Amino acid sequence: MLDFVNDYAEGAHDKILDRLRETNLESTPGYGNDSFCESARQKIRKACGCEGADVYFLVGGTQSNQVVIDSVLRGYEGVIAAETGHIAVHEAGAIESTGHKVLGLPHEEGRLQPDVVRRYIKDFYADANHDHMMFPGMVYISHPTEYGTLYTKQGLEGLSAVCREYGIPLYLDGARLGYGLACADTDVSLEDIAEYCDVFYIGGTKVGALCGEAVVFTKENTPRQFLTLMKQHGALLAKGRLLGLQFDVLFTDGLYLEIGEHALKMAALLKKAFAEKGYRFYIESPTNQIFIVLDNRQMEELGKKVNFSFWERLDDEHTVARFVTSWATQESAVRGLISIL
Amino acid sequence: MLDFVNDYAEGAHDKILDRLRETNLESTPGYGNDSFCESARQKIRKACGCEGADVYFLVGGTQSNQVVIDSVLRGYEGVIAAETGHIAVHEAGAIESTGHKVLGLPHEEGRLQPDVVRRYIKDFYADANHDHMMFPGMVYISHPTEYGTLYTKQGLEGLSAVCREYGIPLYLDGARLGYGLACADTDVSLEDIAEYCDVFYIGGTKVGALCGEAVVFTKENTPRQFLTLMKQHGALLAKGRLLGLQFDVLFTDGLYLEIGEHALKMAALLKKAFAEKGYRFYIESPTNQIFIVLDNRQMEELGKKVNFSFWERLDDEHTVARFVTSWATQESAVRGLISIL
Amino acid sequence: MLDFVNDYAEGAHDKILDRLRETNLESTPGYGNDSFCESARQKIRKACGCEGADVYFLVGGTQSNQVVIDSVLRGYEGVIAAETGHIAVHEAGAIESTGHKVLGLPHEEGRLQPDVVRRYIKDFYADANHDHMMFPGMVYISHPTEYGTLYTKQGLEGLSAVCREYGIPLYLDGARLGYGLACADTDVSLEDIAEYCDVFYIGGTKVGALCGEAVVFTKENTPRQFLTLMKQHGALLAKGRLLGLQFDVLFTDGLYLEIGEHALKMAALLKKAFAEKGYRFYIESPTNQIFIVLDNRQMEELGKKVNFSFWERLDDEHTVARFVTSWATQESAVRGLISIL
Amino acid sequence: MLDFVNDYAEGAHDKILDRLRETNLESTPGYGNDSFCESARQKIRKACGCEGADVYFLVGGTQSNQVVIDSVLRGYEGVIAAETGHIAVHEAGAIESTGHKVLGLPHEEGRLQPDVVRRYIKDFYADANHDHMMFPGMVYISHPTEYGTLYTKQGLEGLSAVCREYGIPLYLDGARLGYGLACADTDVSLEDIAEYCDVFYIGGTKVGALCGEAVVFTKENTPRQFLTLMKQHGALLAKGRLLGLQFDVLFTDGLYLEIGEHALKMAALLKKAFAEKGYRFYIESPTNQIFIVLDNRQMEELGKKVNFSFWERLDDEHTVARFVTSWATQESAVRGLISIL
Repeated sequence: MLDFVNDYAEGAHDKILDRLRETNLESTPGYGNDSFCESARQKIRKACGCEGADVYFLVGGTQSNQVVIDSVLRGYEGVIAAETGHIAVHEAGAIESTGHKVLGLPHEEGRLQPDVVRRYIKDFYADANHDHMMFPGMVYISHPTEYGTLYTKQGLEGLSAVCREYGIPLYLDGARLGYGLACADTDVSLEDIAEYCDVFYIGGTKVGALCGEAVVFTKENTPRQFLTLMKQHGALLAKGRLLGLQFDVLFTDGLYLEIGEHALKMAALLKKAFAEKGYRFYIESPTNQIFIVLDNRQMEELGKKVNFSFWERLDDEHTVARFVTSWATQESAVRGLISIL
Repeated sequence: MLDFVNDYAEGAHDKILDRLRETNLESTPGYGNDSFCESARQKIRKACGCEGADVYFLVGGTQSNQVVIDSVLRGYEGVIAAETGHIAVHEAGAIESTGHKVLGLPHEEGRLQPDVVRRYIKDFYADANHDHMMFPGMVYISHPTEYGTLYTKQGLEGLSAVCREYGIPLYLDGARLGYGLACADTDVSLEDIAEYCDVFYIGGTKVGALCGEAVVFTKENTPRQFLTLMKQHGALLAKGRLLGLQFDVLFTDGLYLEIGEHALKMAALLKKAFAEKGYRFYIESPTNQIFIVLDNRQMEELGKKVNFSFWERLDDEHTVARFVTSWATQESAVRGLISIL
Repeated sequence: MLDFVNDYAEGAHDKILDRLRETNLESTPGYGNDSFCESARQKIRKACGCEGADVYFLVGGTQSNQVVIDSVLRGYEGVIAAETGHIAVHEAGAIESTGHKVLGLPHEEGRLQPDVVRRYIKDFYADANHDHMMFPGMVYISHPTEYGTLYTKQGLEGLSAVCREYGIPLYLDGARLGYGLACADTDVSLEDIAEYCDVFYIGGTKVGALCGEAVVFTKENTPRQFLTLMKQHGALLAKGRLLGLQFDVLFTDGLYLEIGEHALKMAALLKKAFAEKGYRFYIESPTNQIFIVLDNRQMEELGKKVNFSFWERLDDEHTVARFVTSWATQESAVRGLISIL
Repeated sequence: MLDFVNDYAEGAHDKILDRLRETNLESTPGYGNDSFCESARQKIRKACGCEGADVYFLVGGTQSNQVVIDSVLRGYEGVIAAETGHIAVHEAGAIESTGHKVLGLPHEEGRLQPDVVRRYIKDFYADANHDHMMFPGMVYISHPTEYGTLYTKQGLEGLSAVCREYGIPLYLDGARLGYGLACADTDVSLEDIAEYCDVFYIGGTKVGALCGEAVVFTKENTPRQFLTLMKQHGALLAKGRLLGLQFDVLFTDGLYLEIGEHALKMAALLKKAFAEKGYRFYIESPTNQIFIVLDNRQMEELGKKVNFSFWERLDDEHTVARFVTSWATQESAVRGLISIL
């Protein structure tokens, strides 16, 4: 069975396993105070072009979103997100469970538009009753988005400008950041993200790590006692070294980008084949997620030989299917899928 | 520098790293629906003598306590714990952050006494104002306790009887369970724990895993939609296989107990040496934590060559120091420490 | 200055003040255990045609919504509401602050449609990822709605059928219930509400009381320890008698309906005048809230002599204004406004 | 039946009822923006000798404690209180339900001692693991305490000094403040409280009002958007005038103190009689709560003719009973009780 279901189906990049083995018996302090974490922090700061960045390692994406958002927001504030944003839909109410509303706004292929955000905030403050409403206290975006699309530099700049106008932070969820940074057509670098965003996380789980995300505060704006808040949310790993070591490897010799490039190369092969065979693309994603409209017969036939994701039902006859490549996708598997198509 | 600070200072047992490597490129579903998790569940059920047990894998101890306690309790209920219990002191308010009070009771060397718990609950219901108070909705114990002490079978039975009398669950935090089960003097087996407790967790992080705890519901009492509740608390690992695989290894060929036995053997060597050299034990712990009273000069001298924990200040002249052995402690290190003593 | 801003601008119905005076020095137990509360409960049960109803008195509407919804929902559940519902917009995140998501759905003049709700829940359960989403655990409606519109009996029956199909409760916010029940054109009685809804509240604050809402559980479905949960939410009034007494008066000799009828009579006079003068109605509300489209000049002129509410901006030239009558509206004030029109 | 159960058993002081009647048909804005609230704020500021004080009116004591404490504390902070403090025992976990731990400390007849508080905070910061614990973020005291005792000016000054040393606010719960201020032996005035405390509330419910407490921030330290936070907690009364009007009356012509003096005069009569008849005082309370040790026979006999509170069981033979006087206590009732004694 060929597997294109997602980008977290396998273990970890070989170099990570190698390094785990090499360092296994070194004794280190717990909770992120070890030399692996420190080394990873330095490399991330350098990669971001932001020497003053404050970096924390958490285990997963929902956890990172929950801890960051709850720590940054005040009690009367909610977080603006695209209606399709991960925090708005697929985190089982993790944000609400900490007391904050997700303020869902319309989007363009998963992206928030600066004008839409500005209009919302402006209308909010113009509303005579806004003291009886949850305040917009942060803007959340994902890059790549849930549809695999990317912001442009101009788009990020625009959102950043709105946020600064109203004094609220811009937060970027980079669960699949490696697949965005490695895109040939993007004009957005890690340095740009560090410049425009007040806080963001660099995804590890979906980009070659066993687990782990690196949360980066870029503006000397780390919430007070963030470590204690991590602990309180059950998000402070005892063996923090496990996370630090992985990011240390990912940010050594450009491995993080290399992983992204591999997945995009595999995705390009696959997209070309879909296009040539006349399949209809649901959305033009430039990254490692491919959304294809299949009719019922195609769904059934393909499903016998390939694992992929059901994305959404389009109509009685058609379904949107998602095919994902990753650091672990082998060219032979792509060729296999293409021959089936 | 010799290291006896804690039992989570190194990576993981070799067999775990081996297995990670072997299985690295196998493609599996996410969120605990993989074959490694399923295999581990079966082995844990068998080890517990509880075929109907429901097993979930979480990343860490505070996280497990938070998710279990918040999921099991009703909104008006708190959790009874020893005043020294981990949830009462060292989890940064993780329980309170989900809305529940930790009802701290006096203890005997870290252990809750059945009579003390019964008296508390009885007095609670006898109080005319108890509708204005947080209800005792669960009893939390740790085994080994924070002082390294163990419950007897009779002790567990007694607490279980109180809990059943009042219809509330007994929950056991087994962060260091392996070091308790392997104790030569204990009469408490994993089967006993599964019998007397309604829910407990088997610690991995401190017993040879990179991370991970196995939460076990033993009485067909899993809270509805527990998976969704894990997700909501940021505690559902995407690559659940990482946790399942580790517990699968730990519960193959008795590795979990073997790890415990090794640490206790190392601890026994060390305790013998402390005793022979005339050091004063702060508490008689039968497991892998050793609490020694040091005077200021000893603290200073030892601190130059050995890493250990400051536990608490006893008086101006004396301090309680904690020395911990683990799955990773090498006999040469113990010999080294003994020679220093 | 004439006042049509809202229905909570004055004190209380004379009969309530009279009764407060008469009973002032009677000594009663606190927290709702007094004879006034008990008498009010009996009268409400009778008016609802529901002898088994369980009735609690709370101070305000947002408080009632928060306590009821948080007490009824499980941790992984959210509440379905119209996107314009009070809990979705104007309660400052009171529902989210207790950990639950408000699941906003499209509406028809403030009313939820049974088909829309059924489709949403059906799609939810059909979604392969719904374990990672907040579950629909309750349906919230307001009657009259925020637009002053009313459900029909058939509409209520339809929503109730959806709720029962999926085993979730239907909750009705009756902040202005009196003005709905008294409507000549409605086919919905208090008995119908008690039949179709699992829980609802009868508004006092906006219908002649100083403060107070009566929460009614109709299906032997009161959450366990609801009194303790009220206390925990800061919603248990020490002098519960203040609330019980007011509802006792409101439900004596049909006063509650009488108050509603008076306000509707005043509203009818006003609507007739608006219509005759050619004003444009933004919505055809059958109750005590009147929504009129004014142009900028009208806004300015009227604003000099009459207090009314800015509702929303329609376009650069036009605004929706809201005029509200109440138990306290005097016919002379209505005549005054008409003469100004 | 004579009634000495509590100080919230009757309605309200006559002057409040009179004023409610007089002003009943005046139309006012909602949510505390009315002239009654504004007038009361001015009078309270003046009585506190604190022109810059920010005053909000809430409905009840638990609600005030919850909203103030949750609004002032950061997420990682708890609140220090006497183990017998109302928030620690009798508010059904209202503080924990908002995510904060109540850090209970030993007390002297209900009073926190500055040295005990300082030692606790000092030890907290000296603990190497304090990043894994809930931080002390506020000190809560009640005055009079739950035992009817009072702080001295020196005691308040001492607590205030500790709080300022560590940069955390001192909060005073004045549910029965009137009975403390009116005490002949106290050296603590309302001005002193405003000076030493960062925030406090002046109790209305137990001191002659139907309901209501006035929260006072004294140091230009009102939490941002406090009104929105009140709304979110269900604590913003629509007819805020009801609260403002009552405090306006209570702070006109010294009524608040007059009410306190009356209750203390009644209490003095009663204490004298208890003493003369040889009853044993459990505690020497200088305010309106009298704690008497009764043997079982006395309990039974007295209980036939007088309502009083069961406070706590002392031993098999003896019980602590509480007798409370109030603004509403009539001298004839006191004489009646004395004749029974």
